[in-house]
Amino acid sequence: MSTTEHAALHIDEDRFLNELRTLGAIGTDTEKGGRTRLALTDAERQGRDFVKGLMTDLGMRVQVDQIGNLIGTLSSKDDSKPHLMMGSHIDTVRNAGALDGCYGVLGGLAVCRAYQDAGILPERPITVIAFTGEEGVRYHPDMLGSLVYAGGMSLEEGLASHGIDGTVLGDELRRIGYDGTAPVGTIVPAEYIELHIEQGPVLEAEGLTIGAVFGVQGISWQRITINGTANHAGTTPTRLRRDAGLAAAKVIAFMRKEIADNSGGTTIAATGSIAFEPNLVNVIPRKAIFTADIRDPDETKLQEAEKKLLAFLEQLRETDGIEFSTESLARFEPVKFDEPIVSLVAQTAQELGLPAMRMVSGAGHDAQMIARIAPAAMIFVPSAGGVSHNPREHTDDQDLIHGLRVLLRVVQRRLESPSCE
Amino acid sequence: MSTTEHAALHIDEDRFLNELRTLGAIGTDTEKGGRTRLALTDAERQGRDFVKGLMTDLGMRVQVDQIGNLIGTLSSKDDSKPHLMMGSHIDTVRNAGALDGCYGVLGGLAVCRAYQDAGILPERPITVIAFTGEEGVRYHPDMLGSLVYAGGMSLEEGLASHGIDGTVLGDELRRIGYDGTAPVGTIVPAEYIELHIEQGPVLEAEGLTIGAVFGVQGISWQRITINGTANHAGTTPTRLRRDAGLAAAKVIAFMRKEIADNSGGTTIAATGSIAFEPNLVNVIPRKAIFTADIRDPDETKLQEAEKKLLAFLEQLRETDGIEFSTESLARFEPVKFDEPIVSLVAQTAQELGLPAMRMVSGAGHDAQMIARIAPAAMIFVPSAGGVSHNPREHTDDQDLIHGLRVLLRVVQRRLESPSCE
Repeated sequence: MSTTEHAALHIDEDRFLNELRTLGAIGTDTEKGGRTRLALTDAERQGRDFVKGLMTDLGMRVQVDQIGNLIGTLSSKDDSKPHLMMGSHIDTVRNAGALDGCYGVLGGLAVCRAYQDAGILPERPITVIAFTGEEGVRYHPDMLGSLVYAGGMSLEEGLASHGIDGTVLGDELRRIGYDGTAPVGTIVPAEYIELHIEQGPVLEAEGLTIGAVFGVQGISWQRITINGTANHAGTTPTRLRRDAGLAAAKVIAFMRKEIADNSGGTTIAATGSIAFEPNLVNVIPRKAIFTADIRDPDETKLQEAEKKLLAFLEQLRETDGIEFSTESLARFEPVKFDEPIVSLVAQTAQELGLPAMRMVSGAGHDAQMIARIAPAAMIFVPSAGGVSHNPREHTDDQDLIHGLRVLLRVVQRRLESPSCE
Repeated sequence: MSTTEHAALHIDEDRFLNELRTLGAIGTDTEKGGRTRLALTDAERQGRDFVKGLMTDLGMRVQVDQIGNLIGTLSSKDDSKPHLMMGSHIDTVRNAGALDGCYGVLGGLAVCRAYQDAGILPERPITVIAFTGEEGVRYHPDMLGSLVYAGGMSLEEGLASHGIDGTVLGDELRRIGYDGTAPVGTIVPAEYIELHIEQGPVLEAEGLTIGAVFGVQGISWQRITINGTANHAGTTPTRLRRDAGLAAAKVIAFMRKEIADNSGGTTIAATGSIAFEPNLVNVIPRKAIFTADIRDPDETKLQEAEKKLLAFLEQLRETDGIEFSTESLARFEPVKFDEPIVSLVAQTAQELGLPAMRMVSGAGHDAQMIARIAPAAMIFVPSAGGVSHNPREHTDDQDLIHGLRVLLRVVQRRLESPSCE
């Protein structure tokens, strides 16, 4: 592919932004704002129908696999070559923004449209995929469709997942007519590129437009229970207290000071949730239950952080006379994306004059599952105020278009890459 | 009164312990344990009837004043002399123990019985009083009956107090037949002595039997609200966080380390209650609401502690980027009891061979209200495990008797005190 051909490909920006708005209007929550399009609900089926329609209009071969992943493939000069895959998801959390997931799916289709509009056949097949149940709100775990796709969970287990509303995933797939027949995971692409909003404040705070995402942080979620003794807060001298609430407070302060601040910025740690028992103003807490959310892009450092936390809890047993237990709520090792693609994203942004940085993703994405079976990477654009999973989720149209241009250019480069021919 | 007369007075121990058990059986909660005898309920009326019956049996003059305080007075050699008053309350919290309050009322009556059994007329009238609504569970504030008695609240305001169940105190007094006619506070005693369980762990921990209570701690209860920013705990770098939960944790740790530990043991501080918003594992708390319970026997030190807390919150505004507000939930200045009576209690315990210490009360008691109008003090006996306001509240019978013997001897001494003749 020549430079001339590069110039010949154009994103239909208005059409793309319109498609985002149209998809974003499906499942509108008039009461609490935003849209609620939980996986495999009627609203999400409407979203699937809309995306499927776009794929059909583009002349793509549309497949639905057995876990319900919606797959469109654009023909190429040589369909026997390994596919280039783009994608994300179109299910949402409750009262979501319009961009999370949808930006990547519609962005992939916009790239395909650029080829179609230009009358250019790509060197290799291009596949766009909308994975089933990424958000994990209705069916656990999150990223279910891509996890099954990558072989990290059996099809049977995925289909048997029980929803928070008592439904079974396989039944709901049938109900909405997306119980596909294509075997799962048969398209193993040469690369997977996911365009996504950052869902964090870094790009905005740094005044940058593009994030070349080189990995996903490892996540360690724990529920910590500290047991002390409930005593009258007025009659119990300090030396006789076994204050579970105080011990919890010490842990929270320790996580920031000794785990996050001491990591050189790579480890982040927070307590988002807490409860005291009996939770009365004048009773020393007999119990404190709270969560620890610790993340790091490096598995060794994440393990070090976990060990530090445990050691501190053991120390509190001595100093504060408390007992404790911990329960793992979630544990994911960090994911490293494919370095050549990450570099290509950074380099492309530079060529387009877009300020960019290499960064990790704090949140989980389908790309981390597909990274198990293929070279993968992600492109981030700024999220205003770092807000996502919220009706206030917002990215300027200009930034959405910038990200899409980077995606298009990266796709073009990868398709002309000798390694894939 | 001679030493011979001292020897002639004896507590009828079995009868006293039986009376405690009988009163303790009124309002039994078969479901959750203990007894629930909230002020002016049918169960508390039964308790009042029982106490009134004991007063009548003792030949005391029984009065009910306009706020419902139940008052029995034993005649003396000279009824024109100022009264010696003992008392406490017989209302309870929910699922209470049998001793809180009742010990002091029945203990006072047991002292009267000792005079009656010995056929000895006391030098001055002895009054035993059961104050209305000490616990403050049904009607606010706590210590209402003694507060009105001491002139700290008008009778009208007291009668108008609205219960948590929508009732009005004055109406309920009428309903249970304890809307007395005696003017409130007309008996201004020469001394008020309240026998009570400690409701704290100090005496037990120190291996002591008697507490000569020289004051009641000042109490400062605040509700503190810290406002930060809710952000994704995975995508927000540490430097961009405004973590309301972390700031709350720092305050809790500060209160222990810089307020309590640095006070030389007199100031105590705790956070008993806390809530985060939105309280999700992966969202940095935008809001933390928690309580501060700070106490000190010295008003200056209590004010210093409050200032330290405020200064630390102001510092957090700079260091942590949070905003805060505080609301006073309760504020009582410390109370100092009458030194001659306190010394007499300590000296009496020593004479009886009972290990004792001078101490402050952590909890509030009717004695602190009566201290506004008369010399007052309290006698404490150990609470097993420091537990009170709980069906597990317990004091060994032997300790109850020891406390009662101290009370009797203190009463004898005060009655022969020249200052009161």
